[in-house]
Formats: sequence, structure tokens, C-alpha cells
Amino acid sequence: MDDRMRVGIAGYGNLGRGVESALARTPDMELVGAFTRRDPAALRLGNRAVPVHGIDAIARYADAIDVLVLCGGSKTDLPEQGPTLAALCNTVDSFDTHAKIPDYFAAMDAAASHAGRVAVISIGWDPGLFSLHRLYGEALLPDGVGYTFWGKGVSQGHSDALRRVPGVQAAVQYTVPSSEAVARVRSGARPALTTREKHTRDCYVVLEPGVDAATVERAIVSMPDYFADYDTTVTFVSAEVLRRDHAAMPHGGFVMRSGTTGVGTRQMMESSLALDSNPEFTASVLVAYARAACRLHRRGERGAKTAFDVAPGLLSPKSAADLRKELL
Amino acid sequence: MDDRMRVGIAGYGNLGRGVESALARTPDMELVGAFTRRDPAALRLGNRAVPVHGIDAIARYADAIDVLVLCGGSKTDLPEQGPTLAALCNTVDSFDTHAKIPDYFAAMDAAASHAGRVAVISIGWDPGLFSLHRLYGEALLPDGVGYTFWGKGVSQGHSDALRRVPGVQAAVQYTVPSSEAVARVRSGARPALTTREKHTRDCYVVLEPGVDAATVERAIVSMPDYFADYDTTVTFVSAEVLRRDHAAMPHGGFVMRSGTTGVGTRQMMESSLALDSNPEFTASVLVAYARAACRLHRRGERGAKTAFDVAPGLLSPKSAADLRKELL
Repeated sequence: MDDRMRVGIAGYGNLGRGVESALARTPDMELVGAFTRRDPAALRLGNRAVPVHGIDAIARYADAIDVLVLCGGSKTDLPEQGPTLAALCNTVDSFDTHAKIPDYFAAMDAAASHAGRVAVISIGWDPGLFSLHRLYGEALLPDGVGYTFWGKGVSQGHSDALRRVPGVQAAVQYTVPSSEAVARVRSGARPALTTREKHTRDCYVVLEPGVDAATVERAIVSMPDYFADYDTTVTFVSAEVLRRDHAAMPHGGFVMRSGTTGVGTRQMMESSLALDSNPEFTASVLVAYARAACRLHRRGERGAKTAFDVAPGLLSPKSAADLRKELL
Repeated sequence: MDDRMRVGIAGYGNLGRGVESALARTPDMELVGAFTRRDPAALRLGNRAVPVHGIDAIARYADAIDVLVLCGGSKTDLPEQGPTLAALCNTVDSFDTHAKIPDYFAAMDAAASHAGRVAVISIGWDPGLFSLHRLYGEALLPDGVGYTFWGKGVSQGHSDALRRVPGVQAAVQYTVPSSEAVARVRSGARPALTTREKHTRDCYVVLEPGVDAATVERAIVSMPDYFADYDTTVTFVSAEVLRRDHAAMPHGGFVMRSGTTGVGTRQMMESSLALDSNPEFTASVLVAYARAACRLHRRGERGAKTAFDVAPGLLSPKSAADLRKELL
């Protein structure tokens, strides 16, 4: 068995807390420190024995960390911090800006390769686990059509967009997959689905005092990119109801592959997630890939990797022989 | 891009035909020959341009084959042929006798390692794709319970067992997952399910003339290992109905993982297959792993591997950069 892996966390928001919690369930790994941009003295982890440092101190602790889990956001944190930290430690992150993945991969690959480290990027459930399902679907059923549906779940990006509408005090947006569209795909019909047919968007909005609800609703449902292409419903609620009923961060979705083999034989692959907490599940995936990052580094791999590059067995604490015996 | 991979087929039954058909959909691979224990002159492939040889001729063609897909059965063919063929070529097979996998792995690993070849074993959907889902489930949600349900589909082993009952002329057995049990798992309740609660068994039986149906039915439903632990229904049909309605080989099933993160947060992972043809889908999986076997060999890997050892990206004809851009 591997030695116990020493794990650091860079950034301690929802995701970092999830990583700490996931590490408590993995006896082969231990959390040895958290690094924050905030005042380290003001931050206490769930496990108070774990030391907290300023993020600039990572270089001093690099030799004591086998893998650093980057828990910053994809918009500004990771593009800045990622390459710097990948030059110091093996890393794993959840970079999820799909369009910028090739650039981010190149930056992380350069930094990690030069430093002799492994940087596993874009880990989580999408990108991540759902990407794997898309790949397995396409590779196993090349004559076929793939579909990804998201939800029901809270979209941070769309919730942020709601909050930027004048007159909105607070808001939460749920992405909802069309059960009719999912059923059509499941039937093997291989439908061509428009954006509007695949998902609907449900918005729960708290208005600022004295604001006209109809004006806000029109501004929301007509917003390009975010809502105009969807059937969007807006429900106005009190701040109290929003806090009480919409504070959780559930998410999930479906990846489907409808394919043909032989002479018109229909084959259907489907994978789905139903998550009560998006950040906690993402954190659990990060921790499994942190284990893989250590092992890849120990066997001499270098540079940036994605979920596509990681043999599944590396994710498990079990030996290859035990995996063959118990799970194959 | 890789050179075109040259693929051979050893054994040409349902599975071999499926492999030929799957290869017709993979432009990066070409079928260069089939090897049979029957009289090669009497066997014609779907594509008549593909030469057919006796299985003993493989040694002469080994240099012209990048990977050999072993399409024999797990009971007698693969334990005999596997190690011999793994000493000649890179191989991929669908060895599926779960209890004997460790021994078979050891035999294939010794043969392939000594010969400097790669042998990918136990590929298909279970073992194979379902094994991966079980592994991802356990690695990502270590605090959880995993479930595998099979069906609705034809079980060859149970159909064979029916045919051994005195008085049975022909028979087909369907394994049927309990929709109630699946629903209970999906609810997050983590039920402890007995064998009887998970699956039922539906038997379609043609009697020999003059045989007492009630006697046959009693013999079936009380058969240990196969039927006694299940709710089994027996329907007697004519030979014509069996041929007309029960000749297809559908199968499928569900792999589920019900887990907890954080403080009691419920998370659910689920993957399923609905296959109109079990052998054609198994063949499609074999072909994708044949691609991976070639690539592993080209990058210097040696010995026996399972789906757990194969990085997902190796299954796709696309480059790593294209995969990151298109599927991540």
C-alpha cells in the first residue's frame, strides 16, 4: 500500500470545506494544511488541529505536501494561481470554463512539466465524471448521438446573472432538464433537440422594495445568452423564503448515448447524478483524483492531465489485485 | 494519429460477428483475418475479402496483427487458448467467470509479460463497463453502498440450466430487475436487499412431447443456485413462439451508488444500459479496448490489464487535444 498521502487545500470556501470533509473519509490521505488569501489567524478549519497559512507560504511547505487541491474559482482564481502553484506541488483542480480549457491545460502543462510535477485539471462532475461518460459513450458506440442534460440544480452563473438585474435583491436559479426530452432520448429516437426543448429555467427572486415585478420579470426572461432561449419562469419570494427553501446547492443531470450496432440494433447507455450538494460531490471527486495525482507522480508521470488520462484504478485506495477480485 | 491498427478475430460466433460489425464503424482499425477451430474453407465472413485461417495458423500471422480479439467462451475456450494466444499477439478478451478472474489474470499476465505483449482481459459490460461504474462509485463516494442490477435480459447460463431439466426441449430465461428494489435504492434509503428482492426470473420453456408440465415447473423453481432463491415464473410456449418472440439477446442493467458526504448529505450515482443485443454491445466494447491495447503496447506497457488499468482517453480514436476540446 502507498504511504499516507499528505494533502493541502488552497482556498477554503464551499469547495475547500467539502475537500476537508471528504478527506475525513479517506484513511490513506491526511490533510496537512490549508492556505488562504484571507487572514490565516481569522480562519479555523472544521478540524482545528490542521494549520492554516497564508497562500504565499505554500513554497515553504511544498516539500511537506504530496498534492495540493486547488479550491479557487475558474473565473479569476485558477487562471492566476494555477500555474504558480503547479510549479510548486502536484495539484488537482476543478477548472470548469469549458471554452478556456485548452489554454488552461497548456499553462498548467508548461508549469508542471518544467517543475517535474503532475497537475490534474478540470476535475469534478462536469467537466469530470460527465466528460468520462461522454467519452465512453462515443468510444463504445461510435455510430450514435450523445446528450447531456443538467439539473435539476442550482446554476451559480445564472443565479449571478439574476442578481445583476436592476431591482433584484437576491435570487436563485434552477436549471431543470425536460423530462419529455429525456424520455425521447431514452426511447432511442435520437431526436434533434433545441436549447429550449432540453432545459427550462426556474428563478426565485427577491425584489428590492418598491420595484415593479413585471419590469423585472421582463428583464429576466428576455436576457440574451442566459434566459431568452429558454422557457423561464420567475417566482417572486420573500428574503425569508429564499433563505429557508433555496439555500441548498443540489444539482445533477444525465449523460446519454443512443447508438446503433450491427444492422440497426439499438443500444442505450445512460449515467446520471442526483446530488444534494454540488460542492461536496465535486470535492469528493477532487479527493479521488488527488490520490491519482500522487500515484502518477510517484510512477514518473509529469505535466498536466485530465480525467481522460487517469486509469480508473488509480482513484481507489485498493490494490489492483483487490479491485480485480472485488469489483471487476 | 496512430497508424491504422490491424485486428484479428479468434473465434467467429455471435461475438466474433459483432466484432467484425463494430470494426466496420472504426476507420482507424482494419480487420485483417479471422481464425477458427472449424474448417476455414467452410467459413465466410460478412466481408468476404477478409481471409479465414485455422486457429493453429495464428503464429504465422502474428507479425501482421496488432491486436487479436479473443471471441471464445469463458468456460473452456479462453482458459485454454488465452495464454497461448497472449504469447503471440496483443489480445483483448471478455473472460467473465468472476470467481476465476484472479487465476486467469495471472496466467495471461505471465504469458503476455514473457512475450512482451499486452493482454487486456475481462472486457465487455459486466465485467467491464459496469466494473468501472462500481469502481467510480466506490472511489468517489467511499461512505456509501453500491448496487448492481441486471436485466431485463437473457441469461445464457440460466437458459442452459433450463435446457438441462429433463423434459425441456428448448428454453430462454430472462433476468428481470425488481423495479421496486431499484426505486428503493434510488430513493437514497440504502436498503439491504435479499437475492429474492433484487431480481425475478422469467422462463419460457418448450416441453418435449408427453411431458408433465407441473413436474418440469417444480424441477425448475426448486433448482438450487439458479432458481430456488428467486421468484421464478415458468411459461410454457410452443417451439414456434420461442423462435419468433425469444430469439433476440437483449440485456442491460443498473449500477448504483448511494453515498453520503459532509454531514449526512445524500448523493446518488447511477449508470444503466438498455441493450437490444448483448453480444453486439460486448463486441463494441472489445473493439474500443483493442484500440487501447495497441496503444498501451506502443508506449511500452507489457502484461495483463483490465478496464481498471486503461486510461479512458486510450479508448477513443481522437487525439488527447481534441478530446479535451470536444468532450471535457
